[in-house]
Amino acid sequence: MRRSIATVSLSGTLADKLTAIGAAGFDGVEIFENDLIASGLSPEEVRRRCADLGLRIELYQPFRDLEAVPPAEFARSLRRAEHKFAVMERLGATRLLVCSNVSPAAVDDDALAAEHLRLLAERAAEHGVRVAYEALAWGRHVNDYLHSWRIVRSADHPNLGLCLDSFHILARDVDPYAIETIPGEKIFFLQLADAPSLPMDVLYWSRHYRCFPGQGDLDVAGLVSHVLRTGYDGPLSLEVFNDIFRQAASMRTAQDAMRSLIALEERVGGTIGELPGHASLTAPPPAVTPTGFAFAELAVPPAAAPGATSRATSEDEAAGEPLGRLLGALGFVRTGVHAHKPVELWEQGEARILLNAGSPEGREGPALNAIGLESPDPAAAVKRAESLLSPVLPRLRDPHDAQLDAVAAPDGTEVFFCRTSQPDHTSWLDDFSEDRRDPAGAAGGITHIDHVALTQPWHHFDEASLFYQSVLGLRPHQSLELPDPYGLLRSRAVSTPDDRVRMALNVAYVGAADGRPDVAWQHVALASADIVATARRLHESGTAPLAVPDNYYDDLEARHDLGARRHALLRELRLLYDRDEHGEFLHFYTATTGRVFFEVVQRLDGYRGYGAANAPVRLAVQHARLHHRSG
Amino acid sequence: MRRSIATVSLSGTLADKLTAIGAAGFDGVEIFENDLIASGLSPEEVRRRCADLGLRIELYQPFRDLEAVPPAEFARSLRRAEHKFAVMERLGATRLLVCSNVSPAAVDDDALAAEHLRLLAERAAEHGVRVAYEALAWGRHVNDYLHSWRIVRSADHPNLGLCLDSFHILARDVDPYAIETIPGEKIFFLQLADAPSLPMDVLYWSRHYRCFPGQGDLDVAGLVSHVLRTGYDGPLSLEVFNDIFRQAASMRTAQDAMRSLIALEERVGGTIGELPGHASLTAPPPAVTPTGFAFAELAVPPAAAPGATSRATSEDEAAGEPLGRLLGALGFVRTGVHAHKPVELWEQGEARILLNAGSPEGREGPALNAIGLESPDPAAAVKRAESLLSPVLPRLRDPHDAQLDAVAAPDGTEVFFCRTSQPDHTSWLDDFSEDRRDPAGAAGGITHIDHVALTQPWHHFDEASLFYQSVLGLRPHQSLELPDPYGLLRSRAVSTPDDRVRMALNVAYVGAADGRPDVAWQHVALASADIVATARRLHESGTAPLAVPDNYYDDLEARHDLGARRHALLRELRLLYDRDEHGEFLHFYTATTGRVFFEVVQRLDGYRGYGAANAPVRLAVQHARLHHRSG
Repeated sequence: MRRSIATVSLSGTLADKLTAIGAAGFDGVEIFENDLIASGLSPEEVRRRCADLGLRIELYQPFRDLEAVPPAEFARSLRRAEHKFAVMERLGATRLLVCSNVSPAAVDDDALAAEHLRLLAERAAEHGVRVAYEALAWGRHVNDYLHSWRIVRSADHPNLGLCLDSFHILARDVDPYAIETIPGEKIFFLQLADAPSLPMDVLYWSRHYRCFPGQGDLDVAGLVSHVLRTGYDGPLSLEVFNDIFRQAASMRTAQDAMRSLIALEERVGGTIGELPGHASLTAPPPAVTPTGFAFAELAVPPAAAPGATSRATSEDEAAGEPLGRLLGALGFVRTGVHAHKPVELWEQGEARILLNAGSPEGREGPALNAIGLESPDPAAAVKRAESLLSPVLPRLRDPHDAQLDAVAAPDGTEVFFCRTSQPDHTSWLDDFSEDRRDPAGAAGGITHIDHVALTQPWHHFDEASLFYQSVLGLRPHQSLELPDPYGLLRSRAVSTPDDRVRMALNVAYVGAADGRPDVAWQHVALASADIVATARRLHESGTAPLAVPDNYYDDLEARHDLGARRHALLRELRLLYDRDEHGEFLHFYTATTGRVFFEVVQRLDGYRGYGAANAPVRLAVQHARLHHRSG
Repeated sequence: MRRSIATVSLSGTLADKLTAIGAAGFDGVEIFENDLIASGLSPEEVRRRCADLGLRIELYQPFRDLEAVPPAEFARSLRRAEHKFAVMERLGATRLLVCSNVSPAAVDDDALAAEHLRLLAERAAEHGVRVAYEALAWGRHVNDYLHSWRIVRSADHPNLGLCLDSFHILARDVDPYAIETIPGEKIFFLQLADAPSLPMDVLYWSRHYRCFPGQGDLDVAGLVSHVLRTGYDGPLSLEVFNDIFRQAASMRTAQDAMRSLIALEERVGGTIGELPGHASLTAPPPAVTPTGFAFAELAVPPAAAPGATSRATSEDEAAGEPLGRLLGALGFVRTGVHAHKPVELWEQGEARILLNAGSPEGREGPALNAIGLESPDPAAAVKRAESLLSPVLPRLRDPHDAQLDAVAAPDGTEVFFCRTSQPDHTSWLDDFSEDRRDPAGAAGGITHIDHVALTQPWHHFDEASLFYQSVLGLRPHQSLELPDPYGLLRSRAVSTPDDRVRMALNVAYVGAADGRPDVAWQHVALASADIVATARRLHESGTAPLAVPDNYYDDLEARHDLGARRHALLRELRLLYDRDEHGEFLHFYTATTGRVFFEVVQRLDGYRGYGAANAPVRLAVQHARLHHRSG
């Protein structure tokens, strides 16, 4: 299928938008009229620029409030249309979108609407233009695709057909099944947008919250399947109005859009089988579902991994190596040092943490810069990512190292696909010194990495969510809003079906008002088989966990009757508590160092959540500490 | 009346919030439970801190999902309540908010609800606590204040009364008139919030978009009048959930909140006359409506006003004085120089522009830093502003100067109240050199300042809107959303009833993603009696206006049939065109220098708008020029 996108979906000037659309590999573009009007490029220049970029102008849009109006108004509209046909001729565009009338002047008269559309189509035919009539979800009288189809059928002109738009159909909860009753050649255009479920008026929702397919809650793939079964062979064209995309960088949004279309075609292909006609759907290599975390890598300031790089004094070590000390207090053992890089390996059970003192990310303080995922087939996982436009990292960064199969996630986090200690594959562990210590000495009760939480820049949240879903095959969970002392945080977990890989994606609020620091914390949550033992060990080593307020425990006693002994234990060890319909959740946090902190969690009886109920308390305490330090 | 605010209305930790609330002069506070739970302060410490700040704890809130549930659940709720009474005792709080039940477990049984509330009130009485029951707009069975009143009346316990909330009542379009049928002593608490009209579900609307009274579209003053007529003598307490206030600085939001309450009391006082009981409403000095613009002052870089400060070479003048040249090209005459400051006065008709080379605001390039308004009584205008918490600027900044009556607007713009050349008052013009030239030589057709457009930081928009309304007595017009290439711009005009002072307040989108500059343009719109002559003069002086694209004129011809000659003239002079139900609007823009540009406008036949339809084109061209320059 040809792939297209409306210029209104991206930020910037028309010239910027076309460049970004071309660079992302689209075949075509819808020219949004206001983008052209505000542009210094003449229609001829736009035409040339599109041709140079390999973009076909698939549609000129929108033409509003034409049909079913009094004669004088209709005459003015026809005059307006003639001017637009002239512009389209200069652009080399041959398809015009006409939206169903929203004006109070429109009357509820299908015969008149059909007559007006037929008259427009006759004029259009003289200019070689085809008219695609779209039922807006908020059209005054026509707001349903079957209604627009009845009008088009009765107008009966070869230059008049339908434009279908997934948002307008699915937002009104109209069943898309009957699309299959429309002949494919009368569907002149197909526009695609998704949207999160939000309880608001459909026009307001459409103007502010549309997103690319797969980023919202609408079944866009199902709708496309119905359309393709009609024999439709026009482009799949994205049309999104979104407050965030309006502000984000256009090159990046265009690539996100393209990723969304590729993933959509894959989903449609999975349901529809052979396509009628000669259209075909992209089938990227299948997703390779990861089976666990291999490691989390923290970039740390250069002084923090002295074993590998420098002979720091013990004071320097004490000042520069808080993460090493913290890992020790949690029961981790430093089991190895990278053969020729300033990287330390710390292990406990299957939990592995790398401290990398050679990465520029760590200069300002510790930051999470990579995660390793266990993969049944690392090379195939990279191929999958590549086909979905993820930047693949160089496979061999050093000829002495084991091969790396890695891609960059949208927020810059490096994602490595690993086969740790498997006979069929080189292992990243081989790069660590041969005198590796046995991690069996580790004794904090920690067994593995439960999840990793990544804070995304506010304008990359939907992109990140789509990346983890489409590239890694993780499933999205419910989107949450968490109150933080300085704004609402959006949070969404994604996980493998078996929950062996879980990630929590948070989006920072817009932030940084009045010079406050933008706090994009990341954290690694470690699963403990005995969180009481882990917490005791931490306390005994003289390291305090995050100071959960006494008021929290007073409230916990009000909400839950866990018995006096258990309440006392939670309070003593500063453990937090949550429960869902499956089981209980105990967890605690360490203090933040740089951008990172650790969480230790214990899931009892199949608890499935992430302790979101306690996140506001955690955030308030973290903010208060930060202000205390900086103020 | 006592004034109070809920801690949830502000950003930060509980300690930050209390400090800000105290500093803004509130008498009391509602402690939002989650703020306490997340705080490191014990209830006793909160109590002491409030006492030190002169704050009474008016309410502890909220207690949820109590009434009309099965017995086991009710028993758990009573247990929870006992814990909360203990916390309230430690806080010294004696009033508890109970929200109507939203849980699916609640049954529709008013008798059971009344019984449960009575049982709670009995327990509360043992602790000296009074329970205020509130009908949430989204309560499962109780969502209307008359319904909650029926239940409270039938429960019939002295420790049980109502909490009324303006949002919950007005958002559901329930008539507040019947409030007057409730005895004042049974209204235990009154919470106030406003909200802009937005087409969405009431819960979503409430959580994200509440604002302070006077900032939205609800008739909060009308509701308060009904409540006060019952004899209610508790506090007026603000409770706002707002995505923006959550992120803004708490000191500033608290002051904005207090300004809103003072203005609200004034409005209520204007309708209600004598209050029953001993409560009284603040009556700030009346607003002094300005009668026109005296001047607009632009801060310019030091080299730009060489007449007053330095003997720059002519090249320096050419480089540094673009605004002087531009004003000359628009027909302005430099009529004077300040007696002892580097400030030039440029005049044409009643339009006066000051170029101030001595202000730090201008160092990075020209910026609008002050406006002068003609006032019938400058001293009274300042008193009004002061009573509404606006920072008053020092009256005499230099002993040789005329007295200044000036305040700072929320965005930092200085607002001067002037009586230009009036015999009853010293005039700011007297500070300019005595050899002032006669502005009659000015010949650009410009007669006066039509309006000034100020871009507000995104988190100060509601505050600015309230400032101009309450302090200056300007009336708000409809709020608009204007598409800009990098986001939606919110825009709202405010004006005097006679339209002699008009201001357009724009809010920048969140901006500055991916390192793009944050563009907070300001502009001065000059009224011309003959815009064609003004534009021709500009062209002839070799200065180009903003380059409106040809595509705009192609579209204008499609939309309006103005005749070939007029279309040609508009296109030739790059004039923009708009029309409303009253008349026509012609305007053009100059290029941007620093943060400022000029607009020249001509209103024909009483056109009332601001050419908003053309703003997207203007913004796109300005952005394209900016990128061209910087890229």
